[in-house]
Amino acid sequence: MNDRQVTSEIPQRPDPSPKARLAPDCFSLPPGVDWLPVEDALDRLRRGLSTIADIKTVPVSDAAGYVLANSPVARRASPPRNNSAVDGYGFAYSSVVGDEARLRLAPGRAAPGHPWPGPLEAGHAVKILTGAFLPEGVDTVVLDEYSSVHNGFVSFAAPRRQGGNARMAGEDIRKGDRLFKHGQRIRANCIATLVAAGIEQVEVFERLKVAVLSTGDELCNPTDIPGSHQIYDANRPMLLSLVARWGFSPVDLGCADDRMGDIRKRLDAGARQADMILTSGGASAGDEDHVSRLLSTEGDLEFWRIALKPGRPLAAAKWRGTPVLGLPGNPIAAFVCSLIFARPVLCRLSGEPWTSPVGFKVPAAFEKSKKEGRREFLRARLKADGSVDVFRSEGSGLTTGLAWSDGLVELDEPAMKIRRGDLVRYIPYGSFGL
Amino acid sequence: MNDRQVTSEIPQRPDPSPKARLAPDCFSLPPGVDWLPVEDALDRLRRGLSTIADIKTVPVSDAAGYVLANSPVARRASPPRNNSAVDGYGFAYSSVVGDEARLRLAPGRAAPGHPWPGPLEAGHAVKILTGAFLPEGVDTVVLDEYSSVHNGFVSFAAPRRQGGNARMAGEDIRKGDRLFKHGQRIRANCIATLVAAGIEQVEVFERLKVAVLSTGDELCNPTDIPGSHQIYDANRPMLLSLVARWGFSPVDLGCADDRMGDIRKRLDAGARQADMILTSGGASAGDEDHVSRLLSTEGDLEFWRIALKPGRPLAAAKWRGTPVLGLPGNPIAAFVCSLIFARPVLCRLSGEPWTSPVGFKVPAAFEKSKKEGRREFLRARLKADGSVDVFRSEGSGLTTGLAWSDGLVELDEPAMKIRRGDLVRYIPYGSFGL
Repeated sequence: MNDRQVTSEIPQRPDPSPKARLAPDCFSLPPGVDWLPVEDALDRLRRGLSTIADIKTVPVSDAAGYVLANSPVARRASPPRNNSAVDGYGFAYSSVVGDEARLRLAPGRAAPGHPWPGPLEAGHAVKILTGAFLPEGVDTVVLDEYSSVHNGFVSFAAPRRQGGNARMAGEDIRKGDRLFKHGQRIRANCIATLVAAGIEQVEVFERLKVAVLSTGDELCNPTDIPGSHQIYDANRPMLLSLVARWGFSPVDLGCADDRMGDIRKRLDAGARQADMILTSGGASAGDEDHVSRLLSTEGDLEFWRIALKPGRPLAAAKWRGTPVLGLPGNPIAAFVCSLIFARPVLCRLSGEPWTSPVGFKVPAAFEKSKKEGRREFLRARLKADGSVDVFRSEGSGLTTGLAWSDGLVELDEPAMKIRRGDLVRYIPYGSFGL
Repeated sequence: MNDRQVTSEIPQRPDPSPKARLAPDCFSLPPGVDWLPVEDALDRLRRGLSTIADIKTVPVSDAAGYVLANSPVARRASPPRNNSAVDGYGFAYSSVVGDEARLRLAPGRAAPGHPWPGPLEAGHAVKILTGAFLPEGVDTVVLDEYSSVHNGFVSFAAPRRQGGNARMAGEDIRKGDRLFKHGQRIRANCIATLVAAGIEQVEVFERLKVAVLSTGDELCNPTDIPGSHQIYDANRPMLLSLVARWGFSPVDLGCADDRMGDIRKRLDAGARQADMILTSGGASAGDEDHVSRLLSTEGDLEFWRIALKPGRPLAAAKWRGTPVLGLPGNPIAAFVCSLIFARPVLCRLSGEPWTSPVGFKVPAAFEKSKKEGRREFLRARLKADGSVDVFRSEGSGLTTGLAWSDGLVELDEPAMKIRRGDLVRYIPYGSFGL
């Protein structure tokens, strides 16, 4: 663990942008660390990162998906006044004596948007609808179903407690309340609170611009006729769709061939246009790995060999001050590394606290004996009976297994023998924001 | 259960649009059914619905989030040719005799995008990089780590099996394979398969246009100064953000006052502009419930009193042939009913099969004794220890409980006493596509 203590010696270029706020060593690890454990890599990333997104103001109606840049203050109480939780009859609890109540029915009624003028005299009751403000002199409501009206009087069994079926002013939100923590992502379930509190606009962090680059002479686009030596570039459209689903603005840097000049040109474009760059391919240490070679000579590269299956090579660097994450070229490894590493990094850079995906312990519908050393993420799919199955093959080339899956099963580093029915950790793709 | 047998007598207007494909009784239930169980309501909706979305063609790179209108056919195998899964040395397995192999190293190497011309003679081996196509005459690869090169020869322990470290052509996708089922929603994990199969465009269903209408004299917009009789309309921005997050196109019908004319005008606009209309407020049977009154006189209304907490009133109707779901006015009830009823309806109408949210059995961090009769959905939040807590109050007016929650705990109809540690069904919002 003492690799965590070491800090990088890499000199930083001066950089006026918020990217400069990033710790110099945020994307570095001491060289020569073999088989870095997943937790250490995540911890290292987490500790080095800070928010780089700019701040802007948006109307609450457009705020869903943004991250709050401050903690909004309620401008109005919710509910603004005491009101009825039911359709019934409202009255002063003090008017009721004994077990049976018989109150004179006042004319008119209280309805939402149409308050009863009030005040209501003692000994009287008034018809009141759900959501209607309680007239002055009313503190308790009895349900229609429990009331009977006869000759201008309402009768009912005396209610047990004062304030029955009444919602109190400010019981949801008090004026001046701080509603959310800075850094909270606004989701649909947060909108009602913001609106009810009379908040019209919120300060949020700009959507992060995330550039995606593929590299490799073997790659061609879906629109091309592939040469006999080529395969289609599956990573770029996949990564761009992940970036968009996560609420970031995707920037397509295209597909570079293996010439340094081409890769450099596209990385420069990414540094100009985006807040962060994701590359795939060429991230290992092999002599064909042009991306890591370029990043190491010009981009403060730290190359990590992560004890992870699938997807051991991960390159972390800054290019012209812009953070770069170099993902494996294999589509399954690129997908898994995006969920495990790229997503929390991007969320943190865009103002959220560091996030970890939520997993659930479910019975295994499979058997497997796992070797010691690497943490494994298996393409998994939940079955109707609540158990989880894994794809028939762990072959890292099988994109169909990725399409088949609806989540990942995470197996920790130690060796283990999994039998059917054993509890394993299943992380639904929903936990990764998909 | 025999209410399921009854079919509605409601006459249908002629309607040329795909909406006409909807079963006449898709949104009807026999009148007078009190306390309809949630499952029966869902079953009734499910059986009556069909796809109403139009079909269009989009490039695979833009296809994420769309629903497939047919089953795409692979235009190319993946991988297109046998290739190496590792960096190492390739050779013909038949060249190896005995336990130790010593093969003459051929000049050059096979790299991705740069095939080795081949064919490779027997008794030879060639350097090969991960992803490189296997030259003719190569069927097996041995890892660099297990090989040693000396004087133009490469030596290694004889591999156990033929085809080691080789990926076979078509092992992922065969040309002509049908890749996905019609009705599958394309997510990020499906993109790689489509691209690898050489598919450039896919036929998908248009995003459903979903209109949202609020009603009530008591409501005002966040941009207004509320009158003393008014509260802010929290439902519309909340519902519009749900619709957008689910990948539909939101249409804002604004907020209607309680005059029939205003509601009718806005419903007409919704029927013209949208495929489905969601309303909130005025959905009960009370005399202030203008929406249900209007829908019952002019819109084939079937009003359901669902055995559900929160959110018992649900209005289902067709307005000028357009399906309408009338949600409760209370924001918490409107939110829950949207997740439980509106979402599967919208997904089905847009071409997906009927979907049910995935829940997980987790230990309760709370205690509760539940009455018999209604199914309850509690605002819930998963704790770090994996147990689930529920909001301090079930008050249906508390939007802050909604904002606090990250999912729902679902409790079935029977009475039950829940103690700490008992397993309860938790449905993360991720399971509802949030």
